[in-house]
Amino acid sequence: MSFRDDGAATVDWVAGYLERLREFPVLAQVEPGEIRARLPAQPPEQGEPFAAVLRDVDEVLMPGITHWQSPRYFAYFATTGAEPGILAELLIAGLNQVGILWRASPALQELEEVTLDWLRQLLGLPEEFHGHIEDTASIGTLSALAAARSAAPGRRAVIASEHAHSAVDKAARILELELRKVPVDDEYRLRADRLELGDACAVLATIGTTSSASIDPIPEIAAACEAAGTWLHVDAAYAGSAAICPELRPLFAGWERADSIVVNPHKWLATPMDCSALWTRRLDDFRDAFSLVPEFLRVSEEVVSLNEIAVPLGRRFRALKLWAVLRCFGREGLQQMIREHIRLAEAFEGWVAAEPGWELCAPRLFSLVCFRLEGPDDVNEALLERVNASGEIFLSHTKLDGRYVLRLAIGNARTTEEDVRQAWDVLRREAGRA
Amino acid sequence: MSFRDDGAATVDWVAGYLERLREFPVLAQVEPGEIRARLPAQPPEQGEPFAAVLRDVDEVLMPGITHWQSPRYFAYFATTGAEPGILAELLIAGLNQVGILWRASPALQELEEVTLDWLRQLLGLPEEFHGHIEDTASIGTLSALAAARSAAPGRRAVIASEHAHSAVDKAARILELELRKVPVDDEYRLRADRLELGDACAVLATIGTTSSASIDPIPEIAAACEAAGTWLHVDAAYAGSAAICPELRPLFAGWERADSIVVNPHKWLATPMDCSALWTRRLDDFRDAFSLVPEFLRVSEEVVSLNEIAVPLGRRFRALKLWAVLRCFGREGLQQMIREHIRLAEAFEGWVAAEPGWELCAPRLFSLVCFRLEGPDDVNEALLERVNASGEIFLSHTKLDGRYVLRLAIGNARTTEEDVRQAWDVLRREAGRA
Repeated sequence: MSFRDDGAATVDWVAGYLERLREFPVLAQVEPGEIRARLPAQPPEQGEPFAAVLRDVDEVLMPGITHWQSPRYFAYFATTGAEPGILAELLIAGLNQVGILWRASPALQELEEVTLDWLRQLLGLPEEFHGHIEDTASIGTLSALAAARSAAPGRRAVIASEHAHSAVDKAARILELELRKVPVDDEYRLRADRLELGDACAVLATIGTTSSASIDPIPEIAAACEAAGTWLHVDAAYAGSAAICPELRPLFAGWERADSIVVNPHKWLATPMDCSALWTRRLDDFRDAFSLVPEFLRVSEEVVSLNEIAVPLGRRFRALKLWAVLRCFGREGLQQMIREHIRLAEAFEGWVAAEPGWELCAPRLFSLVCFRLEGPDDVNEALLERVNASGEIFLSHTKLDGRYVLRLAIGNARTTEEDVRQAWDVLRREAGRA
Repeated sequence: MSFRDDGAATVDWVAGYLERLREFPVLAQVEPGEIRARLPAQPPEQGEPFAAVLRDVDEVLMPGITHWQSPRYFAYFATTGAEPGILAELLIAGLNQVGILWRASPALQELEEVTLDWLRQLLGLPEEFHGHIEDTASIGTLSALAAARSAAPGRRAVIASEHAHSAVDKAARILELELRKVPVDDEYRLRADRLELGDACAVLATIGTTSSASIDPIPEIAAACEAAGTWLHVDAAYAGSAAICPELRPLFAGWERADSIVVNPHKWLATPMDCSALWTRRLDDFRDAFSLVPEFLRVSEEVVSLNEIAVPLGRRFRALKLWAVLRCFGREGLQQMIREHIRLAEAFEGWVAAEPGWELCAPRLFSLVCFRLEGPDDVNEALLERVNASGEIFLSHTKLDGRYVLRLAIGNARTTEEDVRQAWDVLRREAGRA
């Protein structure tokens, strides 16, 4: 078989998959070890045709796939690997660029900087922010805190709310910073009056927390950071994409004062995993933290290779997929998707509010609804287990004020009102079986 | 246009690209800023068809592509994004798995563990090594040294040879470890008699250094590390893939005693960027360094999610492309590729040795030849500039014993003897123009 034939078969496979997304159980219905047991314990001696790989994706792996692409995936934060991004990954692999420094791929580096600048404009951030791409927000958070640490020698604390993402816990451990968790108010927002910044090299504030999509009071935090000379990192990994809609910009007030910002286009901007955007207005501090080129050798007229402002040396041509998504959706297409997701979340919120026996557990912000059955935690836990075991939808949970809470996260471009309606039907049906 | 039509056009584009690889200048012949200037400064308002993206890859980006896929790419370490890996990336993006924990994609986690175990067997490593995939060796090195640091509280030094990869410099800076560089012998191997391990949490030893592919004396280093209770990390990012050939195993003597090992299938094992394999025999130390699950909550019968032993939380389905490559090449196909590359490097080495006015600068190990024109550095530097400006081939350089040295690295599956012969012709032709 030729590459063209195998390629045609692979496109056909992916096209068929995307057409049949609603047919699969959303959460993989396998036990630990089940997929492993289906795979040979030894590697192959002779080569096989690619058709054998395609066959085994169906026969061996598919039962172990949790369908993040499903329109009925509502867990964690729902995502979309949209068509232009999928095909761009084929180009990325075909070109196989390894962006270790500028000349190793001028197109990679310059497209990455331009595309991140496009996205900066789309989100309404000021032009002094320089952007590049990391694989995940975990690495972006680690990088920003490493830059903050090196910019403030002797300050060894990092401050975040108790609802901040666990990436800050991991980064603090790796960087040996003391992580101080600040309490939140009754809407799960960091209490800015509890900030003690004397020994803090950084504050991590969140717009769109993982638990409830709450928004820390960025203007107050920014003012405190500016007064104390403390680095402000804004984690908007999930919600940041919503800033593309002007009517939602008020929710982002103050983020333009941050020293660094993370937004994940692979979460809510239709880009396949992995693509995490990191902007900073303190490029020199990133360079001081990561560049291995001694300052006296830095030639001003030469380009700064992205490895000088990031942890990894090698870099995939991820910009190509973000570029493809931005071009094929355009500002209008992305705004339309975000607005529809918020509309669907509002609708679901309304159904819960109107239904006796159910309660909302946090203000509905962006496209995430936190809710539960009135009554004890174990009833909700058992409900979620039945719902996910049905395979019809997949939701996850969180704890808010110590209570077990269900989360319905909308973020898949293929999700329709009918899908959300079905989620609500399944939830009520399974609640009735308690 | 439908996804099927756009997909067919994209497969056609990649197929055509792979067929025409020898037609492009290997090193991009653009000035800094040239690609940026060809791109609109503002993002698009309306969506465009994917065909417009494909068109602009050709018209806008291609001049800025350095052709890592070219059979005449001999710079840094040459790589191959082979056909099964390219098509697997299409599947990966189509499925869009986000491996944040086991149930988010049982297939991702279990295929990653099984595939890394296959590769462990292919390379002849003992079965107590557990493997997972990182994006790059930079992150793998950082992870291994973080685990080593947490396993040896109070020990703050890491030791490597002066020829170790710069990833260790960056990791040491991030982890705030003191990096001590040990001198090398006359074959660029770490001098084991210079190891002082009292305060060292880790030694980084290399099999196949970036400069000259030299091999540190692993058995002596391993013995010293064992005696001192110091973590041994083996960086075999480039050369590790060669252990798939039994006749080359003697070059890897002692690596089975390492605490952790990095090998990059995206370097010399036909897998598209990014795929860096990290094995460790000290999984518990990785878990202690990275897991955010408190020990009392670790349930033994449950699976350990890969985020518990790595820096990032999110994880792409990279295992699928490595699996596709291992299956479509098989052990035999990969051995054949590695052996052919070494044969071609030997041939080139012979031509240089036989030619008056040229000299070899390091023992030829694996598929890398270090050589130069006899005479001053600036002549060699100018030669390399002319050679790369021709676009016919692309080589890089290094410094050995303070001298400017050219490197010819063979590692592209499409490279033939004719390509290597042409490299030698271009080098001699341009040398004659001095």
